[in-house]
Amino acid sequence: MAREKNVEQITNMDEDFGQWFTDVVTKAGLIDYSGVKGFFIMRPYAYALWENIQSALDTRFKELGHENVSMPLLIPESLLQKEKDHVEGFAPEVAWVTHGGAEELAERLCIRPTSETLFCDHWNHIVKSWRDLPLLYNQWCSVLRWEKSTRPFLRGREFHWQEGHTLHETAEEAQRETQQMLDVYEELCVDYLAMPVVKGRKTDKEKFAGAEATYTLECMMHDKKALQSGTSHYFGDGFAKAFDIKFSDRENKLRHPHQTSWGLSTRIIGGIIMTHGDNNGLCLPPRIAPVQVVVIPIASQKAGVMEKSEEIAARLKDAGIRVKIDASDQSPGWKFAEHEMKGVPLRIEIGPKDIEQEQCMAARRDNGEKAAVPLAELEAYAARLLGDIQTSLYDKAKANLTANTHPAATLGEAKEILESHGGFIKTMWCGSEECEARMKEEAGVTSRCIPYEQERVGNVCTICGKPSDTMVVWGVAY
Amino acid sequence: MAREKNVEQITNMDEDFGQWFTDVVTKAGLIDYSGVKGFFIMRPYAYALWENIQSALDTRFKELGHENVSMPLLIPESLLQKEKDHVEGFAPEVAWVTHGGAEELAERLCIRPTSETLFCDHWNHIVKSWRDLPLLYNQWCSVLRWEKSTRPFLRGREFHWQEGHTLHETAEEAQRETQQMLDVYEELCVDYLAMPVVKGRKTDKEKFAGAEATYTLECMMHDKKALQSGTSHYFGDGFAKAFDIKFSDRENKLRHPHQTSWGLSTRIIGGIIMTHGDNNGLCLPPRIAPVQVVVIPIASQKAGVMEKSEEIAARLKDAGIRVKIDASDQSPGWKFAEHEMKGVPLRIEIGPKDIEQEQCMAARRDNGEKAAVPLAELEAYAARLLGDIQTSLYDKAKANLTANTHPAATLGEAKEILESHGGFIKTMWCGSEECEARMKEEAGVTSRCIPYEQERVGNVCTICGKPSDTMVVWGVAY
Repeated sequence: MAREKNVEQITNMDEDFGQWFTDVVTKAGLIDYSGVKGFFIMRPYAYALWENIQSALDTRFKELGHENVSMPLLIPESLLQKEKDHVEGFAPEVAWVTHGGAEELAERLCIRPTSETLFCDHWNHIVKSWRDLPLLYNQWCSVLRWEKSTRPFLRGREFHWQEGHTLHETAEEAQRETQQMLDVYEELCVDYLAMPVVKGRKTDKEKFAGAEATYTLECMMHDKKALQSGTSHYFGDGFAKAFDIKFSDRENKLRHPHQTSWGLSTRIIGGIIMTHGDNNGLCLPPRIAPVQVVVIPIASQKAGVMEKSEEIAARLKDAGIRVKIDASDQSPGWKFAEHEMKGVPLRIEIGPKDIEQEQCMAARRDNGEKAAVPLAELEAYAARLLGDIQTSLYDKAKANLTANTHPAATLGEAKEILESHGGFIKTMWCGSEECEARMKEEAGVTSRCIPYEQERVGNVCTICGKPSDTMVVWGVAY
Repeated sequence: MAREKNVEQITNMDEDFGQWFTDVVTKAGLIDYSGVKGFFIMRPYAYALWENIQSALDTRFKELGHENVSMPLLIPESLLQKEKDHVEGFAPEVAWVTHGGAEELAERLCIRPTSETLFCDHWNHIVKSWRDLPLLYNQWCSVLRWEKSTRPFLRGREFHWQEGHTLHETAEEAQRETQQMLDVYEELCVDYLAMPVVKGRKTDKEKFAGAEATYTLECMMHDKKALQSGTSHYFGDGFAKAFDIKFSDRENKLRHPHQTSWGLSTRIIGGIIMTHGDNNGLCLPPRIAPVQVVVIPIASQKAGVMEKSEEIAARLKDAGIRVKIDASDQSPGWKFAEHEMKGVPLRIEIGPKDIEQEQCMAARRDNGEKAAVPLAELEAYAARLLGDIQTSLYDKAKANLTANTHPAATLGEAKEILESHGGFIKTMWCGSEECEARMKEEAGVTSRCIPYEQERVGNVCTICGKPSDTMVVWGVAY
């Protein structure tokens, strides 16, 4: 059946990946633009996707002992200024509230760009003894950063996220927490979102404003660019000192606690789109898809077709599958294109001939394969297909990452690879910001991270030639 | 065992109810104050309570076909001004953003006080045909209203809520939705929060800015004052006209759709506190309590006590009960007072003597009754007690509402009842704003609602004496 309407209108991803992305987020019904630049409306389909991500993460957070809280939306300017590096990082990009009703405020208030200062101010009030620790807090909210250029999901002036903030007796415990939460993000990316990750530490230049160390997951998109997909920060006791948070320890001495924060945002939805999407639109990993199976009645006016469609949907629902019937008055061809655009992992078609033969047709979104399924085996078949799709999406993304990550022993080689292939390069690095700056200037890439999985690409810094035993992954980042 | 520490510090509720409330919200660990007036920190215990409320409502919303979305935080001034009554109602109390980073904005933006204008602007983009309707949307978020006097939960400059917004082909369908969602709020109040309601329509003076009609649930607090605990609005097509939302109907004619909105906020937590709390602190209805049973080991250093406590907790958890062990190094007396303050419905004590006798002690938070429970019957006993507590809290609140609601046939009688008893009064009313104003001036009460359950308190307006067949409930409102 011919593709109709929606699909005709999307740009080919290999011609203009940026325009393809914009087309997909609007045509798949994820986003609408509001009247204010950089503020996007998350439509029901996008929000349902976000709810599935929230549910997966929130469950893990709670299993690991975290509690949700709510901090205020607004931060007084004087509070934002308490930690020097932090304010330098964020002050240039916050939105300022200057009036409440008709009254001009004595001190202007910024809309939170992140909430470290608020958590610290609160902890200053409530922490007294080692008995009060650890505090393992998380907040689901939106934050504002007044970006110059904006794109749906990838860079909004407002975006949704969770921000975890924890406070610990010892540095070691805080460091373990930082790593543990990075692992939780990795589970989400790998197991739910079918996104392979490069896991590592950020260089000092790229770390979070105010952190001692930032850890990250870097994912490769279809266009070979990098998306930072979750970060976890270790703060040491820097914030605690700046905000005068002290506790009496087990020896009854006053000490500063150690702190972490970690966040994952709706940016990850941009990552899902750019990892798995294709020229027919979105392609969602089954574990996170709001609708896993769409049932499409063929010749639905014929006797028994609607009844059989509903029976199939009911059976799948009972088997724990998220299923929807498209009973609208559109043509089957229109529906096929529409649900492909929306990235529904599996389409089931059922018409009079199928009913006669006690079967239905199942079409995979990821590779277009279509097969007849005996109705007697419906649930098992659907579950197996959904599992296969999940695995196959991961494998394909992993293959893209592997095929487009190259070692480079010299700056010349790095430039050549990046010009001819793009993607990630792996080089040795001496640790200096100068070499990072030069890499950016000459090869156009920034350090993504110092991966946990180190390998040797020579034994000197690729940029300056000084001895080095540290490998860095570089790329062009969203 | 003597009550210790925490409980000594709370004000007697019959001496100073306002101070009692403030004491409870802080001592029970619900709230901390931030550096900005009217912005409160919801600590883990308060947020867990809110999550239980969210979960109960969100499940019902979805069962009834609603979808969650996210609208922007900020509204351009020009957009807020599109519906005349609406802007008059809200403009005086919004917070204004005037700068993004270092740049002064060309048009100032307000932080949403409610999102009708944003939903309408979005619907103007996406609604074309009757096939697009109904749209049944909901949003969980926080909103800002720059109130002069503020109190935790009851009146915040920022508060959390859900705001449902729906769009329909016909007025009748929108009116049914308005009533249906009021019913959902009533289920929450009655079945989960053990709060009896007076259900009715607001007078024109008290209705929402821009609504054709507002419906409300009014609850009576322990101090006999009223708390508005959920409202549902019918808008007709007024907003649709102001925002130029049109659809082609089934006869292919262009028409304006009809609209509703409905909201319930964290204010309801203030309602729970003021309905059920007592001089020992919070008292939470089991269906909504973050912790339904707290297990307290007695002489926990003795052999077997901790093990038995953990066994009890595990058994209750397996039975679907939210349970926690307090294994801290505080004294049992301190723990009793602490968990009474936090309103945990049921306390289970287990010590060496109980273990010998194969029993534990169960103490009810609502009435202090304590009984020995054979361990063999633990789960059934706990479930039955939790059910009894839920019912008994409702009955007690209902008795308070009934005992403190009085008919008044004359203005003199109304004043006398209000001066001597307080509470709600029921009178006939002619429908004029003048009579409402006079009631406020002379008797100090405002109209709470025109209840669905009407009764005759004479046949003339209690205030002016004109013929009337409408009964109104009046009270002092939070």
